[in-house]
Amino acid sequence: MAAFANQQLHYHHRTDLFGRLRNPGAKLRSGPTRVRMSLQENAPSLAVVGVTGAVGQEFLSVLADRDFPYSSIKMLASKRSAGQRISFQDKNYLVEELTTESFNGVDIALFSAGGSISKEFGPLAVDRGTIVVDNSSAFRMQDGVPLVVPEVNPEAMDGIKAGKGKGALIANPNCSTIICLMAVTPLHRHSKVVRMVVSTYQAASGAGAAAMRELELQTHEVLEGKQPTCKIFQRQYAFNLFSHNSSVLPNGYNEEEMKLVKETRKIWNDSNVKVTATCVRVPVMRAHAESVNLQFEKPLDEDTARDILKTAPGLVVIDDRVSNNFPTPLEVSKKDDVAVGRIRQDVSLEGNYGLDIFICGDQIRKGAALNAVQIAEMLL
Amino acid sequence: MAAFANQQLHYHHRTDLFGRLRNPGAKLRSGPTRVRMSLQENAPSLAVVGVTGAVGQEFLSVLADRDFPYSSIKMLASKRSAGQRISFQDKNYLVEELTTESFNGVDIALFSAGGSISKEFGPLAVDRGTIVVDNSSAFRMQDGVPLVVPEVNPEAMDGIKAGKGKGALIANPNCSTIICLMAVTPLHRHSKVVRMVVSTYQAASGAGAAAMRELELQTHEVLEGKQPTCKIFQRQYAFNLFSHNSSVLPNGYNEEEMKLVKETRKIWNDSNVKVTATCVRVPVMRAHAESVNLQFEKPLDEDTARDILKTAPGLVVIDDRVSNNFPTPLEVSKKDDVAVGRIRQDVSLEGNYGLDIFICGDQIRKGAALNAVQIAEMLL
Repeated sequence: MAAFANQQLHYHHRTDLFGRLRNPGAKLRSGPTRVRMSLQENAPSLAVVGVTGAVGQEFLSVLADRDFPYSSIKMLASKRSAGQRISFQDKNYLVEELTTESFNGVDIALFSAGGSISKEFGPLAVDRGTIVVDNSSAFRMQDGVPLVVPEVNPEAMDGIKAGKGKGALIANPNCSTIICLMAVTPLHRHSKVVRMVVSTYQAASGAGAAAMRELELQTHEVLEGKQPTCKIFQRQYAFNLFSHNSSVLPNGYNEEEMKLVKETRKIWNDSNVKVTATCVRVPVMRAHAESVNLQFEKPLDEDTARDILKTAPGLVVIDDRVSNNFPTPLEVSKKDDVAVGRIRQDVSLEGNYGLDIFICGDQIRKGAALNAVQIAEMLL
Repeated sequence: MAAFANQQLHYHHRTDLFGRLRNPGAKLRSGPTRVRMSLQENAPSLAVVGVTGAVGQEFLSVLADRDFPYSSIKMLASKRSAGQRISFQDKNYLVEELTTESFNGVDIALFSAGGSISKEFGPLAVDRGTIVVDNSSAFRMQDGVPLVVPEVNPEAMDGIKAGKGKGALIANPNCSTIICLMAVTPLHRHSKVVRMVVSTYQAASGAGAAAMRELELQTHEVLEGKQPTCKIFQRQYAFNLFSHNSSVLPNGYNEEEMKLVKETRKIWNDSNVKVTATCVRVPVMRAHAESVNLQFEKPLDEDTARDILKTAPGLVVIDDRVSNNFPTPLEVSKKDDVAVGRIRQDVSLEGNYGLDIFICGDQIRKGAALNAVQIAEMLL
C-alpha cells in the first residue's frame, strides 16, 4: 500500500477486505457526507437513471466525492424501485419511476439501467434537450455518438461542447475497454500499437449487485459443504472461474471480447489496430484485472514505457520486482485510479517491439460511474 | 457435465464443490481402495519422496487408480513427518525419513519434495541404480535429462529405456507447461506454432497444501469481516488475485513465466518457438486455467483445430457456444483429462494464421502426479 500512498492514489473510500458494496441490496447507500454541498442555483439539473443499481449508487458517490455542481437531481428507476427513499448530501429524495416525462427540464442524465432502457428513454431525453451520458452498450458503436474516456479521447466531445444547450447522446465505453485503454493509450501515443492480445480477470460487479451477492452467498454455501445457489450465472462461481457470461457470437468471440476489439478502434479512431481478447469471470468482487500483450510499430523499451505511464493521468504504476508487488484488484477497489505493473519487454518479440503489462481497475468506479461523471464534467 | 460424460472424461474422483484436498493437512489420505491389488512380486520396487505433501498424496492416489504394479513401496518424507502411518491399498506403511540409504534396492522413485531435496538426493538415488522421476524444477533444463509429457514427447524417453536397469533422472515439467502443451502440441504438430501468448489463472495448490488451507481460512475470515491470515503469500488471496508468487527475474518475468518459455522449447525440441507468458494466482483450489493465443507458420482453421483436439489423447473438448459452456477449473478438478475450449480464429490475424483457446487442467493431477506416474509407466 505504500506504493499507492507515495503515488497519490486517489483514495475516496476506505477499501474493505471484500470489495463488496457496503449494504448489498438491502438498504440504499448514500454518498459520503461532505461539508461542502454541490447544490448550486446556476448549476445544471441532473437525473440519475437506474439509481438503485450498483452503478447508479456509485454515480451518487462519485458526484458527491467530486463536488459535482447541480441545481437539482432526480432519482429515477424502474416502477419496482420507485417509492424508495435515498439520502444524498443531507437531503432526502424519493425514487421516481422513469417515464417519458422524466426528462423535462433535465440538463444532464446519467444512465445505467441496461441497454433496452437506454434505447427506449435515451432518445426521448435527447429530444427534450437533455445530454445523456449512457453506461450501456446501446449507442456505443453508433455513428455520431462519441465514445469517450476523458483521459484518452477528450477531442471526441468537441462536437457536443460546440452544440451547447442541445440534447445529445454520449456513450461510456465498456468497463474492460476503459481500464485497458487508460494504461495502453499513453504508450500508443508514443509508439503506435499495431496488435494487442488481452486476457481479462473480471469481477462479479460487472454483472450487477445481484451477482456480487450470489458470489458471497455461494462462497458461504461451498465453505459449509452445501450445493451453491446458482441463479445469476447458472454455475458455481465460488472458488471457480468461467468464460464471460455474455452471448457468444458466430465468430466464437463473446460480446464482451468484441467490445474490446471494436470500442478500441472507435476510441482511438484507428480502424487498423488489431485486437484479440479472452474475457473470463473470476471470483473477485468489484475490480477487473487484464493481462495485455502489446506489439508496437516502432520499438518501445520498458524504461521509457514506465516513465510514460508514471506521468499519465488517472494511472498509478505499481511495479516493484524485488518485493513482488504489482497491481491487485483488491487494492484498486473503490479507488479512482487504474493501476498498471508487470511492465516488461516481451521476450517473444525481438528489438523491443513488444511489451507485456498487467492492469487493474475498479469496474464500478473508473469502469463505469467515475468515467461517466468525468464526461459530464466536460460539459460544465 | 454432460459434455464430460459424452466424451469419456476420466473420472477417478468425485469432484467436491470446493476442489480442496479431502482431509487438508490433518490426516493423511490414502488412495481409493480397489479390489485388484497392484502388489506383484516381479514388479519394480518404488519409493515416493515427499509422500506427505499434496503431490505426494496424489502420487499414491494415481498409482492406485492406475493399478501401477510394484513389489514394494517406500513412503519417504522429511524427519518432521517420519513416523506417521499411511494406509495404502489395504496395507499399513510407516513414513520413513529420507536418508542417503533410502534408495538401496529402489527401482523407481517419484520425487516431489522441493528442488533442494531433489538436488541433494536425486543424484544419490541415481548412483544406486534408481530411476528418479522428479517433479521439482531442479533438473528440468539440465542437458541430458529428459523433460517429458508422455502424450507430447515420448521419444525423449528413448535413451532411458535403452539403458534399462541403470539409474537416471527424468524431469516432470512445470504444471502450467504440461497443461498448456497438452492442448497446444496436437495443433503444433499439424501447423507449427511460431508464437504463443499465455495468460494463466493458477490455483492455490501449485503453492502446496498449506496455501490451499490458507485460501480456505482467509475466505472464512473475510466473510466474517476479519483481517485475513497472510502467512503463505503475505497478502490477501480470498476474493483477490495477484501476480504469481515466484521470484521476478532481471528481465521482469517471474520464474513461473520463464518455465513456460524455456520448457516449451525443450519439450518441443524447438529453440525458435516464441513464447511470452503472464502468470497469475486466482482464488481457485486445485486446477489451473490458461488463455492461450497462438500464431502459426501455416494457416489453421478453427474447425480443423477442433477436430485435431477432439482426437488428441488426454484431452477433452468443451466448446459449446450456444449454451456458453466451456472449460472451468472446478470441472477438471481431480480429473485426469485436460479440457480445452473457446477454440476460435483470432480476429487480429488475417488468413487463419491465429487461434485463441482456453485450457483447464488439474494442477496436482495431470500438472504433477499423473504425469509423473505416466512417465514411470513408460519404464515398465
